[in-house]
Amino acid sequence: MPVSKHQFNLEPSIDFDTVANKKQQYEVNVLCSELKLKLKVMAGGDNKKAEKKPKANVSGGGKKKEVKKETGLGLSFKKDENFGEWYSEVVVSGEMIEYYDISGCYIIRPWAMSIWEIMQTFFDAEIKKMKIKNCYFPLFVSPGVLEKEKDHIEGFAPEVAWVTKSGQSDLEVPIAIRPTSETVMYPYYSKWIRGHRDLPLKLNQWCNVVRWEFSNPTPFIRSREFLWQEGHTAFATKSEADTEVLDILELYRRIYEEFMAVPVIKGKKSELEKFAGGLYTTTVEAFVPNTGRGIQGATSHCLGQNFSNMFDITFENEKGEKAKAWQNSWAYTTRTIGVMVMVHGDDKGLVLPPKVASVQVIVIPVPYKDADTQGIFDACNATVETLSEAGIGAEADFRDNYSPGWKYSHWEMKGVPLRIEIGPKDLANNQVRAVRRDSGAKIDLPRASLVEQVKEILYKIQESLFEAAKQRRDACIQTVKTWDEFVEALGQRKMILAPWCDEVEVEKDVKARTKGEMGAAKSLCSPMEQPEIPEGTICFASGKPAKKWTYWGRSY
Amino acid sequence: MPVSKHQFNLEPSIDFDTVANKKQQYEVNVLCSELKLKLKVMAGGDNKKAEKKPKANVSGGGKKKEVKKETGLGLSFKKDENFGEWYSEVVVSGEMIEYYDISGCYIIRPWAMSIWEIMQTFFDAEIKKMKIKNCYFPLFVSPGVLEKEKDHIEGFAPEVAWVTKSGQSDLEVPIAIRPTSETVMYPYYSKWIRGHRDLPLKLNQWCNVVRWEFSNPTPFIRSREFLWQEGHTAFATKSEADTEVLDILELYRRIYEEFMAVPVIKGKKSELEKFAGGLYTTTVEAFVPNTGRGIQGATSHCLGQNFSNMFDITFENEKGEKAKAWQNSWAYTTRTIGVMVMVHGDDKGLVLPPKVASVQVIVIPVPYKDADTQGIFDACNATVETLSEAGIGAEADFRDNYSPGWKYSHWEMKGVPLRIEIGPKDLANNQVRAVRRDSGAKIDLPRASLVEQVKEILYKIQESLFEAAKQRRDACIQTVKTWDEFVEALGQRKMILAPWCDEVEVEKDVKARTKGEMGAAKSLCSPMEQPEIPEGTICFASGKPAKKWTYWGRSY
Repeated sequence: MPVSKHQFNLEPSIDFDTVANKKQQYEVNVLCSELKLKLKVMAGGDNKKAEKKPKANVSGGGKKKEVKKETGLGLSFKKDENFGEWYSEVVVSGEMIEYYDISGCYIIRPWAMSIWEIMQTFFDAEIKKMKIKNCYFPLFVSPGVLEKEKDHIEGFAPEVAWVTKSGQSDLEVPIAIRPTSETVMYPYYSKWIRGHRDLPLKLNQWCNVVRWEFSNPTPFIRSREFLWQEGHTAFATKSEADTEVLDILELYRRIYEEFMAVPVIKGKKSELEKFAGGLYTTTVEAFVPNTGRGIQGATSHCLGQNFSNMFDITFENEKGEKAKAWQNSWAYTTRTIGVMVMVHGDDKGLVLPPKVASVQVIVIPVPYKDADTQGIFDACNATVETLSEAGIGAEADFRDNYSPGWKYSHWEMKGVPLRIEIGPKDLANNQVRAVRRDSGAKIDLPRASLVEQVKEILYKIQESLFEAAKQRRDACIQTVKTWDEFVEALGQRKMILAPWCDEVEVEKDVKARTKGEMGAAKSLCSPMEQPEIPEGTICFASGKPAKKWTYWGRSY
Repeated sequence: MPVSKHQFNLEPSIDFDTVANKKQQYEVNVLCSELKLKLKVMAGGDNKKAEKKPKANVSGGGKKKEVKKETGLGLSFKKDENFGEWYSEVVVSGEMIEYYDISGCYIIRPWAMSIWEIMQTFFDAEIKKMKIKNCYFPLFVSPGVLEKEKDHIEGFAPEVAWVTKSGQSDLEVPIAIRPTSETVMYPYYSKWIRGHRDLPLKLNQWCNVVRWEFSNPTPFIRSREFLWQEGHTAFATKSEADTEVLDILELYRRIYEEFMAVPVIKGKKSELEKFAGGLYTTTVEAFVPNTGRGIQGATSHCLGQNFSNMFDITFENEKGEKAKAWQNSWAYTTRTIGVMVMVHGDDKGLVLPPKVASVQVIVIPVPYKDADTQGIFDACNATVETLSEAGIGAEADFRDNYSPGWKYSHWEMKGVPLRIEIGPKDLANNQVRAVRRDSGAKIDLPRASLVEQVKEILYKIQESLFEAAKQRRDACIQTVKTWDEFVEALGQRKMILAPWCDEVEVEKDVKARTKGEMGAAKSLCSPMEQPEIPEGTICFASGKPAKKWTYWGRSY
């Protein structure tokens, strides 16, 4: 399926004129036509004027019967047929996201927020072990400071949002909203760091940042405001900085692979793709098979001494000499959640890996006419209690205005890893029926060994989600050696591993030669684990001697 | 000591013109002259152009000898003599705050952030028990929505910061930065709430908000950006809403009294002082004896049905009738930290209650010439290990470029509740010397019973900080019955309990009649625990029959 570059551009925008100013007028017509489609799809879910009462919408959960008939619970789009629409619909119907009346901004609902909190708890504890401390720097940056590092500001300037008024008064000087906090923080690093004993200085903050982007706003993946952590550290030596870059990258890998069950490739970004103003950028790179696009999962940058030069972050070393600090910065964002949805979701909705699901098991009573309804309800309550006591996130859905079938669909839409059904037969046999969200497999579990078996199943779900995702990802990886092979693989939307000469001009050339309606190819990363490069191997694009293996493809 | 209204207004501002626009030009001259004083005080700590390297500053911690001589570690101002300067200095020297180059914005350093995190952990767990869920709504609000509730926007409009540009382009419509999120959230409450089964809807978010205030910017207490939680809940009935208002207020009381060791009075705000657009506001009210000012600690509002009317938050009740939701909102902010500093701090610096101190015990080796230095260091390490294993926050300060005396002062400045010194004599006697930060009391502790005794001492410190603060606060409370008594007590900077007729016009009149350079008096709260009002009691201000006892005074 060809996937339009504009498929995510579907929410109403209040600033088309500004978009036009950004020389993207050509996209506006596409946007408008797709907007109409979208509004039709939303079936009355009025996203543009949220202050008006919508009549009904596609988000199933918690809605009453008159709003959402059982037959209307499914998704309107299929993942393999219209991925962009499917994604928009699944994050809304799964109650992760609500579209907001300002384009590119999204409401993160509790169902998604709980995932963010689980990862936060993990990551925050890990960095505290590394003696990194949390702090909070202001949202606002004055222009002089923001513009201090030239390469850096070139990278961010077009996306900076400016505050120019308070109340009815104009500010004397416009104030920027942080797109990232290097320039916010480093003037103070300069102040705080005097001698080698002040190093390392290792700070982190959990906050919101704003990048007023105009291309492809997509929930989680690309939004104008997003949540992240940003770590900013300073060291006396490059080797300490290098070590930390990789320690953090490993935590990012764990977030994706151990929590999100999403396989990633650890690698290094090219000169063209590295962080603006930094020395080198490492990345965990994910891949979305349905769109054939790579996606930068999280990045850990060594800034070298570029910022310490600009911001005069110097210290007296042990020999009494002046030296510049070596700096890192690293961040991961709410994008992680979007990648997870894209990789695991299916035509029934979200599929949550057990490790990030706040509700891991949903217990649903299946009463029959003339059956012992109270007994069934009691068994459901007891099941929830038993599982909760064992540390498993379990809830029961006792709502009396929905049928069991509706509830199955509802909790499948929300991606709960395991469903437990309890009906008269289960009650009689002192068992429960467990149904896996990922595979649909049904297993009868004796209530006596419930906890151990549920734990085992959740563990298996986590594992097999990762394995399945890895198989799908690996099936998309293609090794090429020539330009023709490269073009062919790109046409098949592969993640392409190719020998490369590692020259900036050649990457620019690859971009220029692959420009098209689906977007140009670029380097994704050079994997840390490099396959051997036999003597005489040449670059797929330039014919010069190849220096490294690099992944290429289209990307988000 | 008379305390100037402007004493907190001391940081350089980049927008004096805007201040002038706000008709506060008269304050600017005062600001400027005090600014010069401040800059002198900062002894080269260049707060205005933070990107320039300052030569030295008053913040003691982590600075090298050439910057900070031992003799220079103390505070320049005394709490009882110049409270405003003392406060500014103590939050900087205690390494809680760094002044930022945008006026009214402050950097929250790890020492303060860890306090915020401790309270966050407590409060977040408590509201989760109440089945309140976390979410995240956007930072930005479109003007139409912001202005929907008239009383509400009147309260906030002058302080709203507006984004009008992105990159080089003007936005078609200016976008506001949330000063609070009622109007951000409630359009979606309208969408999500359909039937009685959708209620209660109970959400909370941890975030930053911006109020571009011009009066008295003060770290923690009044800043243009601050961190808070904001809870927003909707119920089917008023009685559920009423109950939650008080449940939350009790959590706020616990934050102040159990964690911050700051006594507060639970009460209800007057009509004039309640939340803009709400039905009624409850508050925990603290008091700063040194300035004789009350300070609103945290507020829990019942919004009634005002917002549900404006935003059409209706539901079908069990009888099938349309009804409006009853709503609450409630918040506490980083102000809590400032109140704690003001109440407990002394001329040596911060005094942290053990429950919010990330470092509860600082262990300092006191080596003598010819003594067993390694033995002392080992004993320090063992002490930290023993205490840490028992869950006590303990660290040792082994820095070799500072004397023990310097370290004592340094950690006193940072307010660590308990210091443990280990010297040759302690080593010989298998004991440690413990010194309380609050009282200066010294106690020798046998190492055999270290954990139990340290726990006991920390418990006592927490308790006696609260008791001492309560005694100081209570000594400032004065009950009056007549206007003359009221004026006299106000002159003595008391927190005044007076019988009141509870009429808006009378409060306005009290404000008008007490206007002066120190600021007018206003009602602080009517305490939940009302003393009896004998028959025939008249209002201190109007002479009309009194309806309730109310606290009055100047306030932050």
